[in-house]
Amino acid sequence: MLTIYHYWFCPFSRKTRIALQEKKVDFEMKLELPWQRRPEFLALNPAGNVPVLVKDEPRQAVSGPYAIMEFLEEQYPAPNLIGDTIEGRAETRRLVEWFDDKFYREVTSLIINEKIMKSFLKRGTPEAANIRYAGQNIKHHLKYIEYLTDRRNWLAGDNFTLADISAAAHLSCIDYLGDVPWQNFEKAKDWYARIKSRPSFQAILQDKIAGLTPAAHYRDLDF
Amino acid sequence: MLTIYHYWFCPFSRKTRIALQEKKVDFEMKLELPWQRRPEFLALNPAGNVPVLVKDEPRQAVSGPYAIMEFLEEQYPAPNLIGDTIEGRAETRRLVEWFDDKFYREVTSLIINEKIMKSFLKRGTPEAANIRYAGQNIKHHLKYIEYLTDRRNWLAGDNFTLADISAAAHLSCIDYLGDVPWQNFEKAKDWYARIKSRPSFQAILQDKIAGLTPAAHYRDLDF
Repeated sequence: MLTIYHYWFCPFSRKTRIALQEKKVDFEMKLELPWQRRPEFLALNPAGNVPVLVKDEPRQAVSGPYAIMEFLEEQYPAPNLIGDTIEGRAETRRLVEWFDDKFYREVTSLIINEKIMKSFLKRGTPEAANIRYAGQNIKHHLKYIEYLTDRRNWLAGDNFTLADISAAAHLSCIDYLGDVPWQNFEKAKDWYARIKSRPSFQAILQDKIAGLTPAAHYRDLDF
Repeated sequence: MLTIYHYWFCPFSRKTRIALQEKKVDFEMKLELPWQRRPEFLALNPAGNVPVLVKDEPRQAVSGPYAIMEFLEEQYPAPNLIGDTIEGRAETRRLVEWFDDKFYREVTSLIINEKIMKSFLKRGTPEAANIRYAGQNIKHHLKYIEYLTDRRNWLAGDNFTLADISAAAHLSCIDYLGDVPWQNFEKAKDWYARIKSRPSFQAILQDKIAGLTPAAHYRDLDF
């Protein structure tokens, strides 16, 4: 059995859950609040961040979104979520990094930090300037999604890959809070609607986070 | 022929150069100042950061440190720099991410930003607090290197891997500026001395960056 230590607003935890569902691998989830720095959790992952994937027999903990995604591809190769050719895999990974690094720095981390972490951890009040900055940045990313999907079926090419999963995982965190301006990005919305209708995404849409109601359209497949 | 678009103080450019040397692949280097945002460079990599690896016949640009490293392993599998088993590769990738994400945020980016970027781009004066903070953080990382090399031949296990290359690439940027407190971390120093003596690392040690003399011991194999 696999266990994921996850946190609701962690896009990297979300993408791990989606990838496992795509591969039809059973897993259980354990909620981890990484800022508590539990010694048992640090023993699994000294970096202290989620997600961590723990596999039984032989027991192994895999940490870090990059290591986890490549591990899943190697351990459960079907369906292939990364690409059939060296060039295709390089393009998938480039886009995974685009969302996990660039989008995360410019959008996800700013909004989650201001809107969730600060109130949850009682660390100061949200900075409107950071939220506005993220709100400007997200437009460039949605435009890039439209640029790509104008030319391709999915973000990295003909097939659904980890690039789509990563992008959708980040966007879903922001969308829960109602901060994705879908109305101005119809084609990005069409792409996200296709992802929302996938069985692998249903659990994410049902997430119910204590004390926080999702935006009205969050679960809606016709949003 | 391969071309790397690189910048001297970019640890990700450095690790790409080292990995290519380990694999005995010829390449040429083109200096890119990413903040200039040259249109020709943005056409290669819309994310705008270095390194970018460009391959001829068929022409392909590979961007992003994660995509580049996996691409090199797939394209030039010998010597294997990532590990022989699924578990081994997960451990290598966990440590690559440790240095490329955690060490970069906590040490490299702070020091490079304060000491290089601010003076080079004339964007304000260095913040002593950031440099001090990075100076505290680096100690924890050197301790972690000692913890690992106490138990293993190299960081990720028996063999030299991308984990060692990533760690050494980051440290070499900081070491050029004289900011690694080797004197208090003899075992980490021993591990770094083994890397410094590898043929793949010689070009890095000969880097001569306009206007900036390296720290006295930077090139010294017995530092």
